[in-house]
Amino acid sequence: MTVDSQELTKLDELAHRLEKGDKRALARAITIVENRGTQATYLIKRLFQKTGKAHIIGITGSPGVGKSTLVDALITRMRENGKKVAVLAVDPSSPFTGGAILGDRIRMQGHTLDKDVYIRSMANRGHQGGIALATYDAVRMLEVYGFDVVIIETVGVGQSELAIAQAADTTVLVLMPGSGDDIQAIKSGIMEIGDIFVVNKGDLPGANKSAAEITASLELSAHPNEELGEYVWHQPVHLAIAETGEGVDKLYESTVKHKEFLEESGMLKERRKARIKAELAEILAEIAQSNLENLIENSSSVQDTFSHVVSLTTDPHSAALAIMKEFRESPSFL
Amino acid sequence: MTVDSQELTKLDELAHRLEKGDKRALARAITIVENRGTQATYLIKRLFQKTGKAHIIGITGSPGVGKSTLVDALITRMRENGKKVAVLAVDPSSPFTGGAILGDRIRMQGHTLDKDVYIRSMANRGHQGGIALATYDAVRMLEVYGFDVVIIETVGVGQSELAIAQAADTTVLVLMPGSGDDIQAIKSGIMEIGDIFVVNKGDLPGANKSAAEITASLELSAHPNEELGEYVWHQPVHLAIAETGEGVDKLYESTVKHKEFLEESGMLKERRKARIKAELAEILAEIAQSNLENLIENSSSVQDTFSHVVSLTTDPHSAALAIMKEFRESPSFL
Repeated sequence: MTVDSQELTKLDELAHRLEKGDKRALARAITIVENRGTQATYLIKRLFQKTGKAHIIGITGSPGVGKSTLVDALITRMRENGKKVAVLAVDPSSPFTGGAILGDRIRMQGHTLDKDVYIRSMANRGHQGGIALATYDAVRMLEVYGFDVVIIETVGVGQSELAIAQAADTTVLVLMPGSGDDIQAIKSGIMEIGDIFVVNKGDLPGANKSAAEITASLELSAHPNEELGEYVWHQPVHLAIAETGEGVDKLYESTVKHKEFLEESGMLKERRKARIKAELAEILAEIAQSNLENLIENSSSVQDTFSHVVSLTTDPHSAALAIMKEFRESPSFL
Repeated sequence: MTVDSQELTKLDELAHRLEKGDKRALARAITIVENRGTQATYLIKRLFQKTGKAHIIGITGSPGVGKSTLVDALITRMRENGKKVAVLAVDPSSPFTGGAILGDRIRMQGHTLDKDVYIRSMANRGHQGGIALATYDAVRMLEVYGFDVVIIETVGVGQSELAIAQAADTTVLVLMPGSGDDIQAIKSGIMEIGDIFVVNKGDLPGANKSAAEITASLELSAHPNEELGEYVWHQPVHLAIAETGEGVDKLYESTVKHKEFLEESGMLKERRKARIKAELAEILAEIAQSNLENLIENSSSVQDTFSHVVSLTTDPHSAALAIMKEFRESPSFL
């Protein structure tokens, strides 16, 4: 599959409109990168040099901790400071029905008339790495449009959420008191992904205790990163009440400070390098998997290999090696 | 890397002891497949024909809904029926500290003296697909040992949890009233992965309402699978109180009935085929990713490509294609 010249002209025009700050072009561009495929590849190639400019903030936490309300309050705060803000709401737990958390977006509608705010739910299609790849590219489209801050809001803290956290420069972990989330977080080691912590619903009983426990646990697990020399980041723990906006100022300040820390310490470059490595690995995995689909459909020898695994006569690893060999010898191999 | 002859003898001996039902051999074998690598490959190859015999039940749900207690009660019920039961507790949300939910296992210690019960936490290492692959292989080791039922207990319902649900023949989704989980589940489309539903903590207020809402939502989304002809599975919704064992009988009966349904309808074979396809895709992705690691370390042209992406002069997709080309031409490929 290639992109024909008529399509190319359209994509060039789209890219041009996107660079001029056209919101409809932005929506279309994100849909294209979500769908992956050749158009997406062309668009990214065309615009890649104009990316990499926004501060990417990941906000994650279990369902019901009030992430959307917090993001809403954070947008208001950032707008007061003149920042152009985009939100990508990514729900990796919803592979079947795209845009499941769209309902939550309704809360953010106060911002819909603001040209410098953009809110978008990402659908989750296809294989595990797909959503991470689509997220990387959607962020790029937002950067080309000209957003200063891109917030990636995701549900939960599983592996694919981690992949999305990796898409961020700064990761904010949102917890609430009494949910057991704080304890689960401490137990499970996800603390390490948080650059900033928020105990939301700070007016609920146990909020101060939660915050204190998290702070204590962070102190225990703190290990100086010697490569950073004099630069040390002490993960702040904020109490907030997103509904009233309480604590949001401090959260905002922490995001700004964390960005400065990343830049001054050289960590920003390191994180972005790691991200590109992860992205390349995902793209390679995607290529390998799409080759598998093709070969299972079109190669009788791969079909045989596949049915030998089903009948327990060939083990999966030997089968994968045989298929890999087929890849290399196949002329249609990418 | 290959396995030397001394190692081979050891692995053959281990395989032999595993087949004889030696628990220490089982523990060692699972550690080996968790660590992946050549020893794992050899062990799976050696034992593959003896796998595929257990009923694999996935039990999933958010933290705190009482999965471990429910599993505990289910083990007791299954043991009364003479079934040999193994539990793999997989926590995909914990990539940093392996075995984070080990603490929960303490509750199940009533079964530790029983030769026909085995409980094991799986650590989560490496890339996203890694835990799914290790889980497939750990299940195989348990099958060779002779377990009739393998329960895979996992936290949450994100993408990688879905990958683990795919490892199961029967998936049990555990919810609790008043957590908002039920609504989230209905909204997010994860209902479709559940073959059996349990509203645990059935003595809490709102339990009946939760169960009714889930039932109603299942009826709404029900779509007859015409390929199955006369065979239809109506997903049951059980109220349970895991602490007292209430409702666990019905849950157990549903798992047995679901297995019969899978066998009679031919779905069991279809599900296992889909699983093998997913596994092959994961292995290929793993091979592609480990090749990337090798090439980034050893090939100066791949290093150049990588730094061109970092400096925004080459886009990631073009870079991946260039690296793929390098793969094919590299003699050390695979």
